[in-house]
Amino acid sequence: MPVIRSDKYGKTRVRLIRVDRSRAPHEVKELSVAILLEGDFSSAYVDGDNSNVLPTDTMKNAVYVLARTLAWDSIEALGGGIARHFLDRLSHVSQVSVEIEEGPWHQIGQHIAAFLQSGMERRTSRLIATRAGISITSGIGGLRILKTAGSAFAGFLKDELTTLPETNDRLFATVLQAEWTYAGNDLSFNELHHDVRALLLERFAEHESLSVQHTLFAMAVGVLEKIDSVTEIYLAMPNKHCLLVDLARFGLDNPNVIFVPTDEPSGYIEARIGRDAANVR
Amino acid sequence: MPVIRSDKYGKTRVRLIRVDRSRAPHEVKELSVAILLEGDFSSAYVDGDNSNVLPTDTMKNAVYVLARTLAWDSIEALGGGIARHFLDRLSHVSQVSVEIEEGPWHQIGQHIAAFLQSGMERRTSRLIATRAGISITSGIGGLRILKTAGSAFAGFLKDELTTLPETNDRLFATVLQAEWTYAGNDLSFNELHHDVRALLLERFAEHESLSVQHTLFAMAVGVLEKIDSVTEIYLAMPNKHCLLVDLARFGLDNPNVIFVPTDEPSGYIEARIGRDAANVR
Amino acid sequence: MPVIRSDKYGKTRVRLIRVDRSRAPHEVKELSVAILLEGDFSSAYVDGDNSNVLPTDTMKNAVYVLARTLAWDSIEALGGGIARHFLDRLSHVSQVSVEIEEGPWHQIGQHIAAFLQSGMERRTSRLIATRAGISITSGIGGLRILKTAGSAFAGFLKDELTTLPETNDRLFATVLQAEWTYAGNDLSFNELHHDVRALLLERFAEHESLSVQHTLFAMAVGVLEKIDSVTEIYLAMPNKHCLLVDLARFGLDNPNVIFVPTDEPSGYIEARIGRDAANVR
Amino acid sequence: MPVIRSDKYGKTRVRLIRVDRSRAPHEVKELSVAILLEGDFSSAYVDGDNSNVLPTDTMKNAVYVLARTLAWDSIEALGGGIARHFLDRLSHVSQVSVEIEEGPWHQIGQHIAAFLQSGMERRTSRLIATRAGISITSGIGGLRILKTAGSAFAGFLKDELTTLPETNDRLFATVLQAEWTYAGNDLSFNELHHDVRALLLERFAEHESLSVQHTLFAMAVGVLEKIDSVTEIYLAMPNKHCLLVDLARFGLDNPNVIFVPTDEPSGYIEARIGRDAANVR
Repeated sequence: MPVIRSDKYGKTRVRLIRVDRSRAPHEVKELSVAILLEGDFSSAYVDGDNSNVLPTDTMKNAVYVLARTLAWDSIEALGGGIARHFLDRLSHVSQVSVEIEEGPWHQIGQHIAAFLQSGMERRTSRLIATRAGISITSGIGGLRILKTAGSAFAGFLKDELTTLPETNDRLFATVLQAEWTYAGNDLSFNELHHDVRALLLERFAEHESLSVQHTLFAMAVGVLEKIDSVTEIYLAMPNKHCLLVDLARFGLDNPNVIFVPTDEPSGYIEARIGRDAANVR
Repeated sequence: MPVIRSDKYGKTRVRLIRVDRSRAPHEVKELSVAILLEGDFSSAYVDGDNSNVLPTDTMKNAVYVLARTLAWDSIEALGGGIARHFLDRLSHVSQVSVEIEEGPWHQIGQHIAAFLQSGMERRTSRLIATRAGISITSGIGGLRILKTAGSAFAGFLKDELTTLPETNDRLFATVLQAEWTYAGNDLSFNELHHDVRALLLERFAEHESLSVQHTLFAMAVGVLEKIDSVTEIYLAMPNKHCLLVDLARFGLDNPNVIFVPTDEPSGYIEARIGRDAANVR
Repeated sequence: MPVIRSDKYGKTRVRLIRVDRSRAPHEVKELSVAILLEGDFSSAYVDGDNSNVLPTDTMKNAVYVLARTLAWDSIEALGGGIARHFLDRLSHVSQVSVEIEEGPWHQIGQHIAAFLQSGMERRTSRLIATRAGISITSGIGGLRILKTAGSAFAGFLKDELTTLPETNDRLFATVLQAEWTYAGNDLSFNELHHDVRALLLERFAEHESLSVQHTLFAMAVGVLEKIDSVTEIYLAMPNKHCLLVDLARFGLDNPNVIFVPTDEPSGYIEARIGRDAANVR
Repeated sequence: MPVIRSDKYGKTRVRLIRVDRSRAPHEVKELSVAILLEGDFSSAYVDGDNSNVLPTDTMKNAVYVLARTLAWDSIEALGGGIARHFLDRLSHVSQVSVEIEEGPWHQIGQHIAAFLQSGMERRTSRLIATRAGISITSGIGGLRILKTAGSAFAGFLKDELTTLPETNDRLFATVLQAEWTYAGNDLSFNELHHDVRALLLERFAEHESLSVQHTLFAMAVGVLEKIDSVTEIYLAMPNKHCLLVDLARFGLDNPNVIFVPTDEPSGYIEARIGRDAANVR
């Protein structure tokens, strides 16, 4: 007899903009929210009995209402409020996952009511709330970064299919994805996000890189050493290869001047770094 | 002292087309391959010691070479060969993950050498190979399907934020993602993929749906009941809402004729269905 | 004094699905409509006087209403009705452009109410209506096609920057965009679309190609010779290069077996072919 | 007899990064180049005679070589050099079009060799070179901007399908595309681009908007009045509607606080503004 081994459902891509015009400049927060519920829903699957199924349309309404009624200044705070809303009122729900992405809007000049968002960088958060407690992670997505010096890749393992030349000076480009876990739930999330992001960028910029792995680890360590309330950090750094163009065919040199950036194939490196070996996922 | 809790690296988006012109019609297989390795790589992260790091560029070369030299007729067979290649020659690697997507090309008319691919549907496979063995899953991605009858959603849980009306007759549209696990490694993967896909579509079409959950389960059961070599199936079915347009404002009726398809917000339902409650992930 | 040299405004991406359940199988038409108006709108720009500005929201409503009330069986017929609607009621409008894209839905098996759309191919139409008359074009977008034989590229112009080898046997892949103009406004558009598409595919498949240009022209001629009511056809055929992988580095041959398909850089060829040299655009 | 009414061919999406490490900070320019040729190519189409056809692969090589050998500090200067290269050496070519997009990289902190590009904004240029001369346009693409005050839309034309309420206070969001034409070919393109962009943003921010059209015109006028070397400016401003959420259903007010940003359907407004009525395109 077939059985459900796991299941979840909810609403994704609930977008909203909150404007606070009581400030100068106005504050604009643009979010995309996803909510997923787990719990006792098997009768819906097996029998078509929807009596335990809160419509996902209602979840969407709840997001709008909570964005209006809760006092929140960070996506982590809003996410916590959304998670508690469903956990509190649905006794058959065992876990609520809330993911929120924020796209940063920047003031135009000194105008209090005009903003631009030229970016694909996203501030992210992910909350997992159960009857036992809540875990909060924050992150960054879509942050494209590049080093024009201080990056090597040599001394690697070679076999008969290896054609890559060693290099002590290459372009190092990636689209950073980061996600870190906090030790507590009542923190200054906006400030912490700013600080973690700054440390990641600083370590990326300063590190004498012997590989993507090497720099990824240095960036993670840089955060863990400085920010006590971060217990673990996950970084994914695809290697967006920039290929040096062979101009010798045309009688020209190319001393690391002209590169072709490529999207595919792409290297990929990810790691999760913690404070100790315990709690390995 | 910071430690690595988990890590993996490899090459993604290695695209290739294999043409077999010994057949009539020619056979065209277009693939995108991703390979990720896990194992003893900590010295690369911590010390910048690359002596254990096979370049991802070499992985790319290996894909091309193996696609040429192996005898393979399915992405599952090629994936197995790729996984074994790395596991056999890299003793410090404990796990190789290979994901392959295939985009279907169809013959144009009766022409033996002309093909069209109008589709976003993807045939997928995912192989996880360790020293202990290999697990093989196959799947479908990007398959957009729609029911114009036989779909209801009523009797659901309501609270004060619920505004969705009940309905016994709605459009049901989704973009199906499916992934199923096989009991063995030496199977007729092409035939099985064809059969699972046909069963999923048939059950979707025939089912008197009381909810997305209800139909998802029926589709999964349809596969598990008929295909013995499938041990578990995962289905994700976002609810791509089609909203009935309110034409009463303009003095017109709209008896399920004109709908607005929407991309966001989107419902989302996923479940993993097995043959019994054991081995819960 | 700055002046407006040209302007237009309207609504884009008005999506709708029309379901006709009186047929067996049901008929599903999914459209995306764009409407742009030109005419006497300068006071809106210069003075902020909106008295001539029909809201684009009203255009959206009109699309839904007309899709419900008009008898239409093709996007060309619906487009004509939409164009006339605005031209008839807005005397200050001199030109209405309507573009409609249709995504094809296919019946699943013999089920009368279940459909799949695995495709990115789009049927398109573009109508330009003025007080003097209406021009109707139909087209195809997003049709990815490939030839595995019968394609050469040799004898081309070379200079000192040319490194491309000549070839008499290559893969020829493109994503076809086509648009053709009809001689009249009261035609069997569905049948004509089917016939033009079939001719384009047949000529693509059969042609002994000496270049993309060569095949593009043959495809256009194939349509113009067979379909009297087409007066002109535009084809755009990006050359989606498939690069033969150099396996000699690994002691292997590669007799047109393993290719790397690439998205960028991309060749691009477009031409507009008519019945004679007159009416050059 | 079918004839070619117009045709062009070339290479698109030729991407490159140029790094200048002689400066502090290093300078990074990332470009995507497209080249299209027009001229005497009919024998290629009609007869498959490629003797006049320079391979698009050679065009790609030329871009890399010219990016290395020319002294250029703006995409307009590089584009001019590329256009002249082909016009000078190919006597059968009558027109060369070059389009270049630049994605802006910003220094990270004070680091001389680390950069981030969080943006989708693109600096663009388009050059059309013929035997008679060259026209140069510059532009902006993908610049998402938003006003939280100073935007109304009222007094518009209404018919029986109009349901949009009038408003004197709405969110105004768009993704600006701009393209302007220069009076000359030997200008300080980097400085001019900076100045035009700043004026567009300033006028957008300051303008008391009565409609998108109204603000679009004010932005164009702002540029034409201040920058003598711009002769014409084209602006496209899709209206990315932000819908005020109806919270009254839940007993809440919503005084322009919570909005839903939408991608479709989308308003669309474009206009070309010049210094006088002459030279209408």
